Amino acid sequence: MRKIDYMDVDITDGFWKDKQDLNRKVTIQSVRDRFEDTGRFKAFEFSWKEGSDEPKPHYFWDSDVAKWIESVAYIIRKNPDKALEKKVEEVIDCIEKNQSEDGYFNIYHTVVDPDMKFKDRDHHELYCLGHLIEAAVAWYEATGRNRLIDLLDRYIDLVIKVFTVDHSSCFTTPGHEEIELALIKLYRLSGKEKYLRLAEFFINNRGNCEEALQKWCRPEQHQSHLPVREQKTAQGHCVRACYLYSAMADLAKETDDKDLLDTCKSLFEDITKRKMYITGGIGSSHCGEAFTIPYDLPNDTAYSETCASIALAFFADRMKDIDLDSKYADIFELEMYNGILAGLSLDGRSFFYENPLEINRSDRNRHTSVYDTERLPITQRLEVFDCSCCPPNVTRFIASVGGSIFSESDDRIYIHQFMPCSAHCEKAEITMKTEYPSDGKIHITIRDGKNKKLYVRIPGWCTDYSFSKDYENAKGYAEIDIDSDIFELNVDFSMQPVFLTANPAVRADAGKAALKYGPLVYCLEETDNGSNLHDLVVKTTCPVDVSYNELFGANILTASGTRTCTNKENDLYYPLDHERVDTDVIFIPYYAYENRGETDMTVWFRYEQ
Amino acid sequence: MRKIDYMDVDITDGFWKDKQDLNRKVTIQSVRDRFEDTGRFKAFEFSWKEGSDEPKPHYFWDSDVAKWIESVAYIIRKNPDKALEKKVEEVIDCIEKNQSEDGYFNIYHTVVDPDMKFKDRDHHELYCLGHLIEAAVAWYEATGRNRLIDLLDRYIDLVIKVFTVDHSSCFTTPGHEEIELALIKLYRLSGKEKYLRLAEFFINNRGNCEEALQKWCRPEQHQSHLPVREQKTAQGHCVRACYLYSAMADLAKETDDKDLLDTCKSLFEDITKRKMYITGGIGSSHCGEAFTIPYDLPNDTAYSETCASIALAFFADRMKDIDLDSKYADIFELEMYNGILAGLSLDGRSFFYENPLEINRSDRNRHTSVYDTERLPITQRLEVFDCSCCPPNVTRFIASVGGSIFSESDDRIYIHQFMPCSAHCEKAEITMKTEYPSDGKIHITIRDGKNKKLYVRIPGWCTDYSFSKDYENAKGYAEIDIDSDIFELNVDFSMQPVFLTANPAVRADAGKAALKYGPLVYCLEETDNGSNLHDLVVKTTCPVDVSYNELFGANILTASGTRTCTNKENDLYYPLDHERVDTDVIFIPYYAYENRGETDMTVWFRYEQ
Repeated sequence: MRKIDYMDVDITDGFWKDKQDLNRKVTIQSVRDRFEDTGRFKAFEFSWKEGSDEPKPHYFWDSDVAKWIESVAYIIRKNPDKALEKKVEEVIDCIEKNQSEDGYFNIYHTVVDPDMKFKDRDHHELYCLGHLIEAAVAWYEATGRNRLIDLLDRYIDLVIKVFTVDHSSCFTTPGHEEIELALIKLYRLSGKEKYLRLAEFFINNRGNCEEALQKWCRPEQHQSHLPVREQKTAQGHCVRACYLYSAMADLAKETDDKDLLDTCKSLFEDITKRKMYITGGIGSSHCGEAFTIPYDLPNDTAYSETCASIALAFFADRMKDIDLDSKYADIFELEMYNGILAGLSLDGRSFFYENPLEINRSDRNRHTSVYDTERLPITQRLEVFDCSCCPPNVTRFIASVGGSIFSESDDRIYIHQFMPCSAHCEKAEITMKTEYPSDGKIHITIRDGKNKKLYVRIPGWCTDYSFSKDYENAKGYAEIDIDSDIFELNVDFSMQPVFLTANPAVRADAGKAALKYGPLVYCLEETDNGSNLHDLVVKTTCPVDVSYNELFGANILTASGTRTCTNKENDLYYPLDHERVDTDVIFIPYYAYENRGETDMTVWFRYEQ
Repeated sequence: MRKIDYMDVDITDGFWKDKQDLNRKVTIQSVRDRFEDTGRFKAFEFSWKEGSDEPKPHYFWDSDVAKWIESVAYIIRKNPDKALEKKVEEVIDCIEKNQSEDGYFNIYHTVVDPDMKFKDRDHHELYCLGHLIEAAVAWYEATGRNRLIDLLDRYIDLVIKVFTVDHSSCFTTPGHEEIELALIKLYRLSGKEKYLRLAEFFINNRGNCEEALQKWCRPEQHQSHLPVREQKTAQGHCVRACYLYSAMADLAKETDDKDLLDTCKSLFEDITKRKMYITGGIGSSHCGEAFTIPYDLPNDTAYSETCASIALAFFADRMKDIDLDSKYADIFELEMYNGILAGLSLDGRSFFYENPLEINRSDRNRHTSVYDTERLPITQRLEVFDCSCCPPNVTRFIASVGGSIFSESDDRIYIHQFMPCSAHCEKAEITMKTEYPSDGKIHITIRDGKNKKLYVRIPGWCTDYSFSKDYENAKGYAEIDIDSDIFELNVDFSMQPVFLTANPAVRADAGKAALKYGPLVYCLEETDNGSNLHDLVVKTTCPVDVSYNELFGANILTASGTRTCTNKENDLYYPLDHERVDTDVIFIPYYAYENRGETDMTVWFRYEQ
């Protein structure tokens, strides 16, 4: 099974077309401006000197700009933009000009700390190179120009020499994974074995050798506690982990490594069945931005980084093409509409790095000293961060989301995601019409696909669905014969508000419910429901009203509930009574939280038991 | 109104007699042994030198030993013990021998850091002196010997000179309050005005002057943000705060200061109506061991220090004699049976410093790095701590608890607490018989009290009570005429299990109930109820079974409840169903938590809504 690339898919209308237009018109420009303001582009000129006014380059800035270039590549492929293109070429000019003779390129180390090249495992050199490689591949695909690939090829040769021949670096595998999946991407484009071998070297040596670790963290933090094939549970920094697992899935596919694939399946299971928020968020702790223990999913201190949701979506997206099972595209969909999208403001200008499932603003004032307050997530999105990995990760995700809708093999067509679009796969043409995610009716047309089999994902959230043709359920996909040259299929994934509960082992959600409508997770805001959201009790057996809302581009839901009525304001503890007053409870999509000023918010709410 | 001192009260039987016997036979000896092991007694010999093997004295060790001496004084008054008495005299010998010529005495500063005398506000010199003064007063009352008082009188004279005449210290008021209440105690014993004036100086200057503060904390941490009469809400470190408020109550009484009394009332209200756990615990945060914001009462990270409960009990105990209202003795009772008593193991040997209302042991494993784990309370009591303020505070509290049962004025007798005991007040003799706190029936006999008025507290937890004589309700006290020379009164405070709820503003307790029986707060342990205590739902409208338990010396309660029945172990989130299986839910007194090995525990539990 292979993806039908984003380049062969046009999103023609609806929810994701709007998001892509916003990304192109607003977000990519805004990220550029903020990177300009903060000196990220300037840093590629290598003009910084100790004592100069210029901002000092950081050791992860290469990757920020690289992800921005990758985003531009995805955008200009369909919507040419001379200004963006020129900016990218200028960055490539700088790389060409400032690359060391031996091929090394890093805006931080060359300029700020040349003695530390390949000496600190946590200094992100290979991570930065990885993102530059992804940018180079996308730029080649968008423009046909291979200048950046060629420059990086020299750097990769240096890495091969330093790490696999001379062993002259102070570490064996990168502290932050990313280069592995990038190398396999470049291998797939170029066919050059050396890239695959280097990826394999980094993957297979991880956890096999002593690595210098920073004192504050355990080897798990960098997935270095065990050889990767023995890592059956997800550990450590979530973004690093899922970038590694994505590369492992790629390597398993390229080398037909069953052991490695089994490990990937086990890791996917561990994350999605034990360590993932209902929004798709991963990373239960600020501390290490990391996975913790099974079922430890606190809502207000959730880290749930936007990049981690993107990384898990990448992992799921790779797995769906190796191991047919709807659970992978289910998770991708969950991330698309919730974990990832929450990271971006509705106006397209600002971002959350952390995405908690509960905000109680009063907690900001609870501490009597300066300790601790910094561990609470911020409550309004920002245009840029000191560590601004998430913004250009969101832009590249949205710009390339079309690449995750379809797959194909010689005699099969797979539909994983649902949105109005058209696609060119080998010989056949596919068209999809739908109001998804506001409504679950989908009309699919396939031309010239006769005698192939069609696989349509049945979303995990849906229990009531119908197809206008006979089908078999194949691991969560409806398997349907394409029986005519112009094949028409009507699908109805009935969307109803569904109240959900968490596994009883999840203490943070005990006695609470969440509400979904189709793929969207909902939340309550103080803006709509008044203060003390924890006091609301929802009647889950009463009907829920559904109505479309322009601002959110999706439905809002109104449920029946109660709140404390008796005036007990002066009592701290008092005998329990069951008297409460009826109230409407208004839910908005989680991805839209904190878009109408500062407000308390919660995904999980009490319900009448 | 004046207290009938512990010396004039004999606790003759029952719950507190058992606790006092245990305190005398086990706890006071165990604390002595641990103080011996850790070098606390040895430090009084001033033999430590840099490089020597002897443990280096800490700057709060004087106070640990002082509280132990105070405890011994209370104990030997009723139960002479030559060995304990000798040990105390040896400590006093050391003080006499090692006191500086100018009167200064401090085991840390003189030996370890003589240049820093009165230079660091957080170095607890005046706090240590305060505890030595309290010890000296108790020692005089127990033995009639005034050697320690006389030694300290010289030190106090030095403090008067340094702080109020020369102003040669680097701070004006102590960083940790305690000396203020101690000075007033000594004033009351001696009648010497200078002690009252010095206490007044420290109280009135607090918050009136710039004080050098450690960088990490705000002035609120030391109650130095405002002049004390303007402090209408409780702020900062809880023990410091309540020691200060106790002294303020004392000063208000001694000087008939209505403003100051009003401030004390306001502070008491703020604590007990907005910042106190249902157990009487105060201090919602490890950070600063401090009060936070109103209604911020997280259960698992509660600090709720044993000493803070003792300090609040002291404050309440003083207020009850100035402002007749049962709410003060209610809080004292709440602390006696819950907040304070939880600090001591059932075997009398070990102590909790922090008393959370919820223990989830799995939280110990949730962190991927070394950050954070230290902020979780320990889960088994220890015999001694590096900062071992709580153990000797518990011993002195238990040994002197008889002093809080009664008060008197010329024509009135007040009964605040209930236990089997006899007391000698001015002319009259009082006897009380009861099974309290297991049962609320009380028989009171008063001889030679005719024509006085009797005031019997009606406990705040009790809604169904009867007196065998006519009474008027006077601010929560039954006011009854003592109409005969041998006056007999039967009281019945009907004890029933009562489910309680918290103010809707307390987020941590939303959707949860607590259970009390008489003055005792109850909790659930994993030991009795299995794991996932958060999954249990109690049926609060079903009867609760009450049965006496020897180990706890109190009743255990058994309620009806449910737990999740469907086997959803493999699902992380799933559609809500209401199917649950019935189960008994067993409650034990909170004070007895964690006495049967490591276990999860919770005071607040879900209930059928």
